Amino acid sequence: MADKKLVEAITSMDEDFAQWYTDVVKKAELIDYSNVKGCMVFKPAGYAIWELIQRQLDDMFKATGVENVYMPMFIPESLLEKEKDHVEGFAPEVAWVTHGGLNPLQERMCVRPTSETLFCDFYKGDIHSYRDLPRVYNQWCSVVRWEKETRPFLRSREFLWQEGHTAHSTAQEAQERTEQMLNVYAQFCEEVLAIPVVKGRKTDKEKFAGAEATYTIEALMHDGKALQSGTSHNFGDGFAKAFGIQFTDKDNTLKYVHQTSWGMSTRIIGAIIMVHGDNSGLVLPPRVAPTQVMIVPIQQKKEGVLDKAYELKEKLGNFRVKVDDSDKSPGWKFSEQEMRGIPIRIEIGPKDIEAGKCVVCRRDNGEKTEVNLADLEKEVADILQDIQESMYNKAKAHLASHIYEARTKEEFVKTFAEKSGFVKAMWCGERECEEKIKEDMSVTSRCMPYEQECLSDTCVYCGKPAKKMVYWGRAY
Amino acid sequence: MADKKLVEAITSMDEDFAQWYTDVVKKAELIDYSNVKGCMVFKPAGYAIWELIQRQLDDMFKATGVENVYMPMFIPESLLEKEKDHVEGFAPEVAWVTHGGLNPLQERMCVRPTSETLFCDFYKGDIHSYRDLPRVYNQWCSVVRWEKETRPFLRSREFLWQEGHTAHSTAQEAQERTEQMLNVYAQFCEEVLAIPVVKGRKTDKEKFAGAEATYTIEALMHDGKALQSGTSHNFGDGFAKAFGIQFTDKDNTLKYVHQTSWGMSTRIIGAIIMVHGDNSGLVLPPRVAPTQVMIVPIQQKKEGVLDKAYELKEKLGNFRVKVDDSDKSPGWKFSEQEMRGIPIRIEIGPKDIEAGKCVVCRRDNGEKTEVNLADLEKEVADILQDIQESMYNKAKAHLASHIYEARTKEEFVKTFAEKSGFVKAMWCGERECEEKIKEDMSVTSRCMPYEQECLSDTCVYCGKPAKKMVYWGRAY
Ligand SMILES: [Zn+2]
Ligand SMILES: [Zn+2]
Repeated sequence: MADKKLVEAITSMDEDFAQWYTDVVKKAELIDYSNVKGCMVFKPAGYAIWELIQRQLDDMFKATGVENVYMPMFIPESLLEKEKDHVEGFAPEVAWVTHGGLNPLQERMCVRPTSETLFCDFYKGDIHSYRDLPRVYNQWCSVVRWEKETRPFLRSREFLWQEGHTAHSTAQEAQERTEQMLNVYAQFCEEVLAIPVVKGRKTDKEKFAGAEATYTIEALMHDGKALQSGTSHNFGDGFAKAFGIQFTDKDNTLKYVHQTSWGMSTRIIGAIIMVHGDNSGLVLPPRVAPTQVMIVPIQQKKEGVLDKAYELKEKLGNFRVKVDDSDKSPGWKFSEQEMRGIPIRIEIGPKDIEAGKCVVCRRDNGEKTEVNLADLEKEVADILQDIQESMYNKAKAHLASHIYEARTKEEFVKTFAEKSGFVKAMWCGERECEEKIKEDMSVTSRCMPYEQECLSDTCVYCGKPAKKMVYWGRAY
Repeated sequence: MADKKLVEAITSMDEDFAQWYTDVVKKAELIDYSNVKGCMVFKPAGYAIWELIQRQLDDMFKATGVENVYMPMFIPESLLEKEKDHVEGFAPEVAWVTHGGLNPLQERMCVRPTSETLFCDFYKGDIHSYRDLPRVYNQWCSVVRWEKETRPFLRSREFLWQEGHTAHSTAQEAQERTEQMLNVYAQFCEEVLAIPVVKGRKTDKEKFAGAEATYTIEALMHDGKALQSGTSHNFGDGFAKAFGIQFTDKDNTLKYVHQTSWGMSTRIIGAIIMVHGDNSGLVLPPRVAPTQVMIVPIQQKKEGVLDKAYELKEKLGNFRVKVDDSDKSPGWKFSEQEMRGIPIRIEIGPKDIEAGKCVVCRRDNGEKTEVNLADLEKEVADILQDIQESMYNKAKAHLASHIYEARTKEEFVKTFAEKSGFVKAMWCGERECEEKIKEDMSVTSRCMPYEQECLSDTCVYCGKPAKKMVYWGRAY
């Protein structure tokens, strides 16, 4: 029924998932490559998803006491160098500004790859007493990392994100904030993006440069690969000591603050695409769909049809609704609405109007229902709600059915050879072992989950005594 | 009555307006200087104002069909150089990135000082047919200009702004969009920021690098100096020709698009401070006040006082309300609320509670009213509305009383020697004459207002035949 032109242009996801992804990104008009190497253009349909993410995540932040600020985008080299692990991690991949106007700078500066050093430099002058604590700041900005290979949303030289940076008077409070923000990310993914996640701690090898501990949420894409979707770091007092951030506590002694940082980026849009998308294109969860309902008039040149379509749009004023009144064919419009992942399509033509009805079609499962126009508002609310839940349940079932267990090296290797998904297995806790696994199998530790199980007494790979259960996977 | 410590710390605005401004910016905790030379830190109180500006201005944009996008922050040198006037205007003041990671770049790139070139480069590949027009895109981002002297909000090396960039099929449509956006800015300033403005066109000397015509809104600060508060540019087809942005029109011929751009920046926060502030600090218009009502409990340790304060906060849930429950004295809290420009203070103590009343104090005029707790919600709504209007009317009266007229050179010189404000005077239209005025008197043409009058037949400065009436002024 639908005009197939648009749809034929995308590769089947079962045939070539990577190509399918690129096709969807382009055809749904989310992003365009720019002539600035490694940088992307966020087109209206892509940026609008980010705006909806921002508003809802920001509201969740503020409910926990977060305040937004804005720090400079440049970091002088001497500032970047203050924390040893941090500079080692980031210096090789930053962009350097060496000239201002016509003159060389006395000291070169990088464009922020992340802003720990800037927040620390600020906190040093801003925090004096226990009364100044906690500081729970966040900023929405873009950051730059000089990546060699780039992919839309997943990896680009410039990307958009939020980065929270907090300072606390005790180690315990910092640890609580670290976990609190990880929970906010998990809740946001599950409730707003309909993406279930695995929560846990990163191994030392995979943790953030300069952190004492990094926590992560890991989502599973349709192809069985993992995507790190948000991270929360506890820095202890390491940065505070490097930068000299001290405060006078209630007992009148000088103490170092304890710090955290946490971030989520436009990468998460890649997760939305790869968790929910299908062979007709993008499928957006209603809560982040810039357009939730597309009304497609049938025989729109017939008298009264377009007027009725506009009338329905007015009636559905509580939702994000558009009327496709372009001069394309209905079939073309259907394909386009499907490609763009718009959750609900309403078809309305002369016969429907006569009968006081319209056809409501769901993007997630293709189900069509005839709805009385009088009930439309309530029906749309219910269906959007149901789509949001169904999408989550479907993704959750997919995740559950792609978690495997391995107790022996043989089983471990075989599972990764035959299946795609997470493999739970015991690990000795040693970095060399983890590096060997990566080298041999292109598999990385995704996290040590909060919910630990004891699958065996020995490390799945080297046979030494087991310390932790780890989720292993291939990752974006 | 109020604890004077905080207040004494700021310089009187009549004594030293520049110092008063710096004091307010610091004491109201809007901004902090950073160790990154020429860049500022937006603290929570400052950034929250920007967030309120963003949301409301963005809503006004979207109501006119604007869509938000995001372009890369870097501009390759060859791209910046494509439009001759534009590169001449901006190249001397950009920051250059020359290295990515450990390697020198093949071509250096600047951090965007403005994004005309990036939008043009994008539009060139994006626009093919009249069906693709108009494109009405905007982005919220930060830009960098390598200024030598900087002042909080008014001039810094990095600042936040929005930049709209549109493409149209006809010259007329581009001109209409240019004026439409100028009107949006004027309406926003008047209705949201309570700042009256003068609308007009810039002279060729003062227009944007690469524009055919620049339109501006000019606001008058308390000290009689002007602040350019928003600009809207019509590029005609100049950029389109430089970049080769063509489309196939309905008549099947290839045509160049006509373009506009328009921007408003964090500079406008400087205007809010300098238009409305007084010797007790900041005075915020309710519509951009992050906190609209501060509840100060009196004798807060007495039973029931704090509970009542929290109860009132709940009751006023439709407004942005905080309770100052810190252990500072009420007098200190009053000073702080005044310094931060919070429009309404509610004082509530044991006697008030017994009488079922509270005291409502307005920041703009210091007026105190006893209000029955039962009427509080309605009263607060009314008072906020009245503050918003009164602030606008006061600023409008100030503007009106600081506009002067000059018909002769003598009068022109004398007025600027004795008064501060705008001076309306006729001008010959010649650049040399305008440059001479600037050189001799440190006065610049602010705009050629929409509403032209004929004050004289000859130019106020050189005596040649007059072409335009101009608003002249000293400017930030
Ligand atoms: Zn091992
Ligand atoms: Zn003249």
